Amino acid sequence: MAKKVLIVYAHQSSSSFNAAAKNIAVEVLTAQGCTVEVSDLYAMGFKATATAEDIKGDLKDAENFSYLEESKLAWEQGRLSDDITKEQSKLTEADLVIFQFPMYWFSVPGILKGWFDRVLTNGFAFSQKKPYGLETFKDKKAMLSFTTGSPESMFCTIGINGDINVTLWPLQNGILHYCGFQVLPPEVFWAPALTAAADRKKMLARWRTRLQDLLEEEPLSFTPLDWFDKETFQLKPEHISEEFGLSVGIHLSNPLPSQS
Amino acid sequence: MAKKVLIVYAHQSSSSFNAAAKNIAVEVLTAQGCTVEVSDLYAMGFKATATAEDIKGDLKDAENFSYLEESKLAWEQGRLSDDITKEQSKLTEADLVIFQFPMYWFSVPGILKGWFDRVLTNGFAFSQKKPYGLETFKDKKAMLSFTTGSPESMFCTIGINGDINVTLWPLQNGILHYCGFQVLPPEVFWAPALTAAADRKKMLARWRTRLQDLLEEEPLSFTPLDWFDKETFQLKPEHISEEFGLSVGIHLSNPLPSQS
Repeated sequence: MAKKVLIVYAHQSSSSFNAAAKNIAVEVLTAQGCTVEVSDLYAMGFKATATAEDIKGDLKDAENFSYLEESKLAWEQGRLSDDITKEQSKLTEADLVIFQFPMYWFSVPGILKGWFDRVLTNGFAFSQKKPYGLETFKDKKAMLSFTTGSPESMFCTIGINGDINVTLWPLQNGILHYCGFQVLPPEVFWAPALTAAADRKKMLARWRTRLQDLLEEEPLSFTPLDWFDKETFQLKPEHISEEFGLSVGIHLSNPLPSQS
Repeated sequence: MAKKVLIVYAHQSSSSFNAAAKNIAVEVLTAQGCTVEVSDLYAMGFKATATAEDIKGDLKDAENFSYLEESKLAWEQGRLSDDITKEQSKLTEADLVIFQFPMYWFSVPGILKGWFDRVLTNGFAFSQKKPYGLETFKDKKAMLSFTTGSPESMFCTIGINGDINVTLWPLQNGILHYCGFQVLPPEVFWAPALTAAADRKKMLARWRTRLQDLLEEEPLSFTPLDWFDKETFQLKPEHISEEFGLSVGIHLSNPLPSQS
């Protein structure tokens, strides 16, 4: 059956490197028979702030407004704002989600952070009672595809920015894995703005090649959920080892401090 | 001389735990003779998206819009939008900046990410040519003060969320240290929503006590800038060691995988 792909795209300019990366993904995946949908956040004027306006009708407790609680209730009762509901429908349909963005401040731009905050609603995308364990998205794949401002040499264990995998932990583990997606390895376009035109072309050509088999790629490995105690959410004693004892090491299936 | 404090505050409700933490900071620091200014981002309706509307007058290259380049130029020429300029003035005045927020998705809420993206302009807050080395903010202190959804036990090296210091790396190193602030240790309010009222009061009482001497606290230590090569921004050979070889370890001045 033809796969469905959602690209959540966050760049202001249609002539940017990020736009080119997005366009190549649309082209290659469509040619494979996929149905590709793009959420072009800036073009949509996507609202990036989590506020009471995201909820239709009366709040349960307007006096003590809790976005986490009110949005959960609104989702259960079909009272989330139309822009959120629309993004959630796209997500429900998708077999693969690609987030395409320029890294801003070691993370996603505010407009994309707002998409995560508002669309990945409590109950819909995760359960606080079962962290990492809501199985709604378990057959979906998701990945980050982004440009950096700094070259790769600055994002390694001896680089001034530190290992890129540390920087990506909150996004790859804290959002994608937490929501139960299968997380594909990131596509990192290192500092295209500092790179010669010919090399920028090579980066895009590599992305084009990777896209051919993207849907068959092995996801990143994270520690199996059943290695954690169901009450404390800490590693069970038999799984604690120096080698795999730390979050980022776990994430990479690699001991620290060596780099993957 | 009386110190100036800026609190950048991101919660929707004035009856929230975050509001209480913010109010205590205003109260204690004012009582010490500090001038305290609060940027209440939701109340201000702060714009969270980095767009061409942030720039007054003509763009240098509207066709190939680069926020990084256009905002740098607009800052140099005094053509940034009034809301950004106002926040930059507050920042220029401040001796201490406290960011008070509920952690959303292992990071700051979209509205606060938007503040970082838009207010910490290229040229004003950092220099790409001198990463971590623009000295404009060197006499200022900054810190994160935030609530979590998960308890502390989930945010340690054997917890399912991993070491909280990994999660904070992009914020504390990637934003605050990158901009040259002296970074004070974070104030973490662990899962107040899951905590009994009496214990929530204790958390706030501890914060009240800490605030008494906050301005005298030692900042977190990061690797000295002159340990890095000025061209490659990698550790000089004489400073590479197993113990301090990894970013988070560097940040904590601690070997990994032990926790601070």
